[in-house]
Amino acid sequence: MKSDLPEIMKQANLDALLITGPTRHNAAMTYFTGSVHVGQADLLVPRGEDPILVFHNPMEREEASSTGLRTKNSDAYKPMELLEKSGGDPLKAIALRYQLMFEEFGISGRVALYGKVEAGPLLTIIRYLEKLLPNVKIVGENNLNSTLIRARATKDEYEIEQIRDIGKSTVEVVSRVAELLKSSPVKGNILQDREGESLTVGKVKNRINLWLAELGAENPHGTIFAPGRDGGIPHNTGQANDPIYTGTPIVFDIYPCQSGGGYFYDFTRTWCVGHAPDEVQQAYEDVLDVYNQVSEAIKPDTLCRIYQDLTCELFEKKGHATIRQNPSLTSGYVHSLAHGVGLEVHEGPYFRSAESNHDMVKKGSVVTIEPGLYYPERGFGIRIEDTVQVRPDGNLEILVDFPKDLVLK
Amino acid sequence: MKSDLPEIMKQANLDALLITGPTRHNAAMTYFTGSVHVGQADLLVPRGEDPILVFHNPMEREEASSTGLRTKNSDAYKPMELLEKSGGDPLKAIALRYQLMFEEFGISGRVALYGKVEAGPLLTIIRYLEKLLPNVKIVGENNLNSTLIRARATKDEYEIEQIRDIGKSTVEVVSRVAELLKSSPVKGNILQDREGESLTVGKVKNRINLWLAELGAENPHGTIFAPGRDGGIPHNTGQANDPIYTGTPIVFDIYPCQSGGGYFYDFTRTWCVGHAPDEVQQAYEDVLDVYNQVSEAIKPDTLCRIYQDLTCELFEKKGHATIRQNPSLTSGYVHSLAHGVGLEVHEGPYFRSAESNHDMVKKGSVVTIEPGLYYPERGFGIRIEDTVQVRPDGNLEILVDFPKDLVLK
Repeated sequence: MKSDLPEIMKQANLDALLITGPTRHNAAMTYFTGSVHVGQADLLVPRGEDPILVFHNPMEREEASSTGLRTKNSDAYKPMELLEKSGGDPLKAIALRYQLMFEEFGISGRVALYGKVEAGPLLTIIRYLEKLLPNVKIVGENNLNSTLIRARATKDEYEIEQIRDIGKSTVEVVSRVAELLKSSPVKGNILQDREGESLTVGKVKNRINLWLAELGAENPHGTIFAPGRDGGIPHNTGQANDPIYTGTPIVFDIYPCQSGGGYFYDFTRTWCVGHAPDEVQQAYEDVLDVYNQVSEAIKPDTLCRIYQDLTCELFEKKGHATIRQNPSLTSGYVHSLAHGVGLEVHEGPYFRSAESNHDMVKKGSVVTIEPGLYYPERGFGIRIEDTVQVRPDGNLEILVDFPKDLVLK
Repeated sequence: MKSDLPEIMKQANLDALLITGPTRHNAAMTYFTGSVHVGQADLLVPRGEDPILVFHNPMEREEASSTGLRTKNSDAYKPMELLEKSGGDPLKAIALRYQLMFEEFGISGRVALYGKVEAGPLLTIIRYLEKLLPNVKIVGENNLNSTLIRARATKDEYEIEQIRDIGKSTVEVVSRVAELLKSSPVKGNILQDREGESLTVGKVKNRINLWLAELGAENPHGTIFAPGRDGGIPHNTGQANDPIYTGTPIVFDIYPCQSGGGYFYDFTRTWCVGHAPDEVQQAYEDVLDVYNQVSEAIKPDTLCRIYQDLTCELFEKKGHATIRQNPSLTSGYVHSLAHGVGLEVHEGPYFRSAESNHDMVKKGSVVTIEPGLYYPERGFGIRIEDTVQVRPDGNLEILVDFPKDLVLK
């Protein structure tokens, strides 16, 4: 969590962070500012000191100030003079501003760069800056294991309540979708809408988007609502024009975020409307049993990857092929057990089984648990997923609970 | 437009473009792929040749293929072998893959970098790549004037229809908001909702978001719905808890995009519910007259900045202060007349009056026209904005028209 940052920066031999871009939909920046709307800014984080937010639009003074951070208006660096000094090169003028900022706040040495921004101009700015300040080295860390990703891999109380908050909206929408499916009339074995036409995957997704908007959530990555064979391919999100059949399992994976690109939630249920075929019921029980056993096993201060191994072992015992036997597997248990959830829907800690993966489960981890089985050739997939926290007492807590019934009726 | 790209690349002495990141919410990539959903990819654009899309997830083969581009699965470069060759450094492994890609497709020389991505890791990858390929120079162009921004500054027929398409949804929502305001009961001089409570700015914005979602649009940058003094500050988006008064002008600026981060539309009306104060009516007529005069003046193959000068001149004649007299002006005509609209809500051509601004109005330009007057100290602001195209015959066309009445009743 944020309070670990000085120690993690020390381990990475970093003297400061430089984070650039908007405050929203830009996780590294949002981590410090919250989802306040500042269109363009730079954040300096000297190791062990309070961050400084340099905002670029004087009209955003109040928003900048509401972050609670030390703030500075970039007009103070006289951008027109810098542009003249740069010979009319706007990217060099920005580098000159960074030089002034670094000098003012005593920043030198190794500075890690963050920000989800258009990469080209920034590359040029960094090249200028390193020429202007030979005692500064701008460092670009690996996304999966960077200083900020390591800090963000455990959450403080405020963050956990933010995730629970978006979780409540998520599960409310899930509950409304369940009601919609249960209450839809059936013609033959096809669900109908109120107009007496087929209730398609696309229509359900439209309702999901409306309900999320109504609850103030955003849905930047879309939703998986994938019946039958499509549910058997983990990345398939479902075809808009497909009807919904009774007795065909639907993988429903929903992962919205707070308005403005704040915290995410990640949640999956697999449902059969009316009744479930025996082979689906059997596979579902296998997934649920693995979910329960793995949930009981997870303890703080252990390596994440041992739970991926455990999941594979449990599935193999039940007769299912797993990805540890064959990395290109498409039938059986084909993905990883879990991942961290926070300002990005996928973030550390990661649960890949690679021995190079040293990510740990810790108190304050917020992670998914999402075992699944995929049999596209048999026309189905199954996944059960909750977002959980590892509480200060070491126990797991599902942040927002919802029944795990396969059959909706 | 896209067909101008080889010539613009030649002028910029570029041999290729390298665009990285997802296909959505990443304008440089979306420009070539459309809003197909490919999570992670690299696009190579050799000058004068067809682009090649290298996608990273084999499960996204069908989506990649539906772009109509030449495609290649990055698995073909054997990422596990590259990781081993890199000594376990994932960023170096990506640089090694770029090396193979550049060699396979004959790319060398000056290559411009694009993509809205986390900047740190890419910086490291580029440093490795330039060491691996000394005959390659990765170039980061200035965002306001880059090769792609220059190509995108004129639109082909397909793009204009995309912008008109999101324009129709935008104006449909505007029309619903007008109906909502006209049909709301009034208590004293405050608008009421159906529950007999105040109809607040926040409630109107919620309805806007719902309606946009219903029409399949996204609203990544929010909406300005700013009554009274707030409308007098161009960047103020309106306070959620503020009530809506009759006789107080509201600046309503709405700028959604197609689902998945496609094309934008940009539209503003200023409304008074019931009646308008005389001074507001007078200022409104000044803005409308300037809007009409400037719209008539705009012709293809002219410098954009002359229309900013014209706008200032017209407002000054009517007795209003303008930004060309004082760059820090907060009262009068305080911003720029217009900007291009496309895959970003603000893009070239730009209408800044600076002599260094050589952007041109051309056939195929899609731009806003948005004169306004701001008097926060008198409790109001006014702006009228449409998105227009410069047609092949040289005439201006409002893409989706809507009445320009100040008073709603």
